[in-house]
Amino acid sequence: MSRRYLNLTPLPEALAAMRQAFPPRDHVETVPLRQAVGRVTAEPLYAEYSVPTADIAKFDGYAVKSGDTLGAQDQRPLPLAGYARINTGEVLPVSFDAVVMIEDTWDEEGIPRIRKSAASGQHVRRAGEDIRAGELVLSKGHRIRPFDIGALATYGITGVRVRSVRVGIVPTGSDLVPLGVAPAPGQTIETNTLMAEAYLTRIGATCRRYEIVPDDPDMIREVVEKAVAENDLVILSAGSSAGTRDFARDVVGALGEIVFHGIAVRPGKPVLLANVGGKPVLGMPGYPVAAQTVLREVAGNLLAWWGLSPLPGEELAVRLSKRLASDLGFDEFVPVSVGRVDGTCWVTPHPRGGGIQMAVVRANGYLHIPAAREGIEAGEEVRVRLTVPSASIARTLVCVGERIPALNELGNRLSDAGYLLHCCNASTMGGVLAVRAKTCHAASVALPETEAAWNDRVLRYLPDVDLLRVQIARTELGIASAGDLDAGSLESLRFVNRPKGTAARVFFDAWLDRQGIDTGRLAGYEHEVRTPGAVAAAVGNGFADAGVCPARTAEEAGLRFTPLGYESCDLLIRQELAADDGVASLIRAARSPEFRAYPGSAGKGRNLA
Amino acid sequence: MSRRYLNLTPLPEALAAMRQAFPPRDHVETVPLRQAVGRVTAEPLYAEYSVPTADIAKFDGYAVKSGDTLGAQDQRPLPLAGYARINTGEVLPVSFDAVVMIEDTWDEEGIPRIRKSAASGQHVRRAGEDIRAGELVLSKGHRIRPFDIGALATYGITGVRVRSVRVGIVPTGSDLVPLGVAPAPGQTIETNTLMAEAYLTRIGATCRRYEIVPDDPDMIREVVEKAVAENDLVILSAGSSAGTRDFARDVVGALGEIVFHGIAVRPGKPVLLANVGGKPVLGMPGYPVAAQTVLREVAGNLLAWWGLSPLPGEELAVRLSKRLASDLGFDEFVPVSVGRVDGTCWVTPHPRGGGIQMAVVRANGYLHIPAAREGIEAGEEVRVRLTVPSASIARTLVCVGERIPALNELGNRLSDAGYLLHCCNASTMGGVLAVRAKTCHAASVALPETEAAWNDRVLRYLPDVDLLRVQIARTELGIASAGDLDAGSLESLRFVNRPKGTAARVFFDAWLDRQGIDTGRLAGYEHEVRTPGAVAAAVGNGFADAGVCPARTAEEAGLRFTPLGYESCDLLIRQELAADDGVASLIRAARSPEFRAYPGSAGKGRNLA
Repeated sequence: MSRRYLNLTPLPEALAAMRQAFPPRDHVETVPLRQAVGRVTAEPLYAEYSVPTADIAKFDGYAVKSGDTLGAQDQRPLPLAGYARINTGEVLPVSFDAVVMIEDTWDEEGIPRIRKSAASGQHVRRAGEDIRAGELVLSKGHRIRPFDIGALATYGITGVRVRSVRVGIVPTGSDLVPLGVAPAPGQTIETNTLMAEAYLTRIGATCRRYEIVPDDPDMIREVVEKAVAENDLVILSAGSSAGTRDFARDVVGALGEIVFHGIAVRPGKPVLLANVGGKPVLGMPGYPVAAQTVLREVAGNLLAWWGLSPLPGEELAVRLSKRLASDLGFDEFVPVSVGRVDGTCWVTPHPRGGGIQMAVVRANGYLHIPAAREGIEAGEEVRVRLTVPSASIARTLVCVGERIPALNELGNRLSDAGYLLHCCNASTMGGVLAVRAKTCHAASVALPETEAAWNDRVLRYLPDVDLLRVQIARTELGIASAGDLDAGSLESLRFVNRPKGTAARVFFDAWLDRQGIDTGRLAGYEHEVRTPGAVAAAVGNGFADAGVCPARTAEEAGLRFTPLGYESCDLLIRQELAADDGVASLIRAARSPEFRAYPGSAGKGRNLA
Repeated sequence: MSRRYLNLTPLPEALAAMRQAFPPRDHVETVPLRQAVGRVTAEPLYAEYSVPTADIAKFDGYAVKSGDTLGAQDQRPLPLAGYARINTGEVLPVSFDAVVMIEDTWDEEGIPRIRKSAASGQHVRRAGEDIRAGELVLSKGHRIRPFDIGALATYGITGVRVRSVRVGIVPTGSDLVPLGVAPAPGQTIETNTLMAEAYLTRIGATCRRYEIVPDDPDMIREVVEKAVAENDLVILSAGSSAGTRDFARDVVGALGEIVFHGIAVRPGKPVLLANVGGKPVLGMPGYPVAAQTVLREVAGNLLAWWGLSPLPGEELAVRLSKRLASDLGFDEFVPVSVGRVDGTCWVTPHPRGGGIQMAVVRANGYLHIPAAREGIEAGEEVRVRLTVPSASIARTLVCVGERIPALNELGNRLSDAGYLLHCCNASTMGGVLAVRAKTCHAASVALPETEAAWNDRVLRYLPDVDLLRVQIARTELGIASAGDLDAGSLESLRFVNRPKGTAARVFFDAWLDRQGIDTGRLAGYEHEVRTPGAVAAAVGNGFADAGVCPARTAEEAGLRFTPLGYESCDLLIRQELAADDGVASLIRAARSPEFRAYPGSAGKGRNLA
């Protein structure tokens, strides 16, 4: 039986409880200078030497006593008395206080002469001009930057005392296999601890990953006890939910005290924090995007509280391209892609599931919907936290619409031109509406290759828009079947169908109409599957006898194929945007012979060249 | 004899020539996943597996065929037929297409019953929901982020082909000693190559530092030839100027072709770029801040051109707090501190010398004055490139005025409260005017501890401002002398003086006035030195017989001391800013018993507690 969380703690309260339970501590380690970039100083750093260590000459010439040069004039040149030859960078002998450049002198009878007196300190780099011995270089709490390394070295600092947090990361789960092992069905590659290590190391924590522990309370307890002894913070990856095999709560509850279990945050709800002997043990959910939220908003917050420097993420004011629903009472984090279209930054959300890790990979930022909001309206101004440098937004092109494999290849080609293609999945209609609202650079649409479909599904919604249409894929569709399609026995066959609005559905309906068959009498007509591959799989596995899919998919599955027509996948672009260098590059790439000759993949065929 | 640059190339032209001479190249290396953060993909990455690999149950319950559950209703419960018990995360057996949660069933005669039919796909995580095998994960040219590591691992990617640039860094200079060796006078710790390594590694280059080469053309040539053979880019640290010991130009000119020598950029002018067998050899100036400019604007630009990702630096729109002069025709880069004062971001410049490395350490950004500008006026809006995360600006307090050692200790204390104290050096007058213009949080002023000085030097300029004054140091000043100060023989002594406006000068003038001595007749009255320490040094070394400095400085130098009065060092803060949490923390820290009991250092005494 599954158990429920007693109650969900609001995120701000959870963080406050965490900070109260675990006050900042003074953990320090010394790292060699070359490894100090990104770390935070635990103590002030003072210069070991003055720089320069002594007064030095800025130019080649003569060291002089400034007092001896008084009175030299254009009309009344003066021979130097009591000088010393000196080169750039050499130390001024102790009795001299100025330098005369060799270019400003000439020799007469072997003695250099000047036309201008030298002020005290002229052409001299003073001892301590940059810094004096014992002066402060960096105060504590400073995140060391690459160029700081040069300064610290110059001032004689060879090792740095930095703030240190040791984090032990324990992966649990009987279904886990380590990276490098191919997962059998039902197995999962253990990756969340790798991600935690990459993220927390970047913040400045020192991470140690433990071996995978199966779902066994005794074994989990043993590793947790060891990890608590060896670290300042322990992260238990997965097992913090309320399911039958989730032992994290029981184990840490027995070892210490639960601070909270379950936060009103999405994704990331099943997070657990316990106090085990004064040290925090954090139970991180198994869904990767939920784990990311917990790493960023909970673990990152604790490390910042303890004096480490969280990863910089720039905030940007943008407009939301379509309404985002959100439950009142939940802090929600949504992966998004930001792009600047005709001068306005628009943000388009990606899918929000905790298991849809690709949404975060495809995104260039995330949007925080606070618990007090029930949703955000289209067009509203919001602040987005970027996961890329803000400079890259100017090089980002956003395409909204159908997920067409050819777009991947197009993205690869665009990267050669210095642009990043962000594809946000939506229906063909979603893409058309985004073009209408001008919230994207391009839409990707998939339609039956007929005039009627184009008029009815595209032009109708964009009556006054000058449009560019660039075909990027073309697919022959037809009925895949295990046996012969015999018109007489059609009603005895079990079909599998595609959703409304797909080209496959349109062709299927038209075909049934031509055959004079009532869809209501057709077995499986209501049975919709999401992908063309699922059609072939259903027929191949005997769940159904026939269904509409691409010719190539049917062929690869060894099924018979009865052609129905072509689906065309196109980019829709507003003509007015074509002057933009990025959009122009997109169009050029899509029309290039190399792209059109690219073979494509099974899902959506390519026969463009 | 020194040689001159033939001509200075404007920065944009130099970069264009560089890009033309060295087109992007496809250097690639494979790194293990754990080392891939921050690197840039050289090839697209595709998923090895579908995720999930198969349809899996989202909840504990029963796997069913959705068709078998049709007709189940509240009023007409249905026993399950042909079901299988399934746990969360387990693979759906091949003949089932939906899951019924165990909570939604009850047993009767050992058979689970349901009240609601199950739709196809209900509570099932579809195979490939996240990604399908062979789908694109990252296109090429993507800078890998920490969370990307988790996704790549999940999709079975264990190593990544990334763009690779091998950089050989050669330090030259007979005066150089390696880090860890204390420099004798005239020696310099070799630090620029460490800085170059820290910076370029962070961009994603693979750096190799060579041993220090003395100023010997043959030895330099030998190492350059070796480094060119072993790397894609060679950086020659120092020796690119036009001085007598600068051999870089001759050496690389003999080995290859000069692309440019000397750029109209400050600091960084003496930069040299040559093409040696198709590979770039970059001569970097020796002054550290000049070297930084060249690393950032030239080497960084080349690596970006070659497909690496330059370090993100956020740009911020700010107002300039005081006029900055700049020579027409030079691109100038000025280290600055940015702080938000009462809602407006103000930027205050630090000193610009190529050797003043501390200016960059103290700064949180830099300002680029383009070649076409002759300067920027106070109050003008400019864009600053930050070297810290922009979030830290809200925690930055800017103090303009005298460089008082007690400020270092104050900065250390403030860092405990989460604030960063940025001190921008200026005269007392400069500090007072910054308070008047409200471009800083506080000013640090140093004045004779007299009512007259306070009225004349502070209040006069801030007549209508409610001011807070917090003393942070107090110093006894007087005349340091080698022998007895005998009034009768004063005019036979040689003095050393401090600049106008200093408390030492004020006390000295008042004392001379009391003694009835005409300053015009006093030997050395015009001889000003910059620091109190220089006064003691001049007297101690016999350059002068007497001068005004702090009691403690005179005592440490073993000199006699004739007291004249006290100098008070204070923070000036507008009362209206005291409500700001950061400013309040500053005031609290300055008034805390711990800070007031801090002993201070020789330059400016502390006797506050």
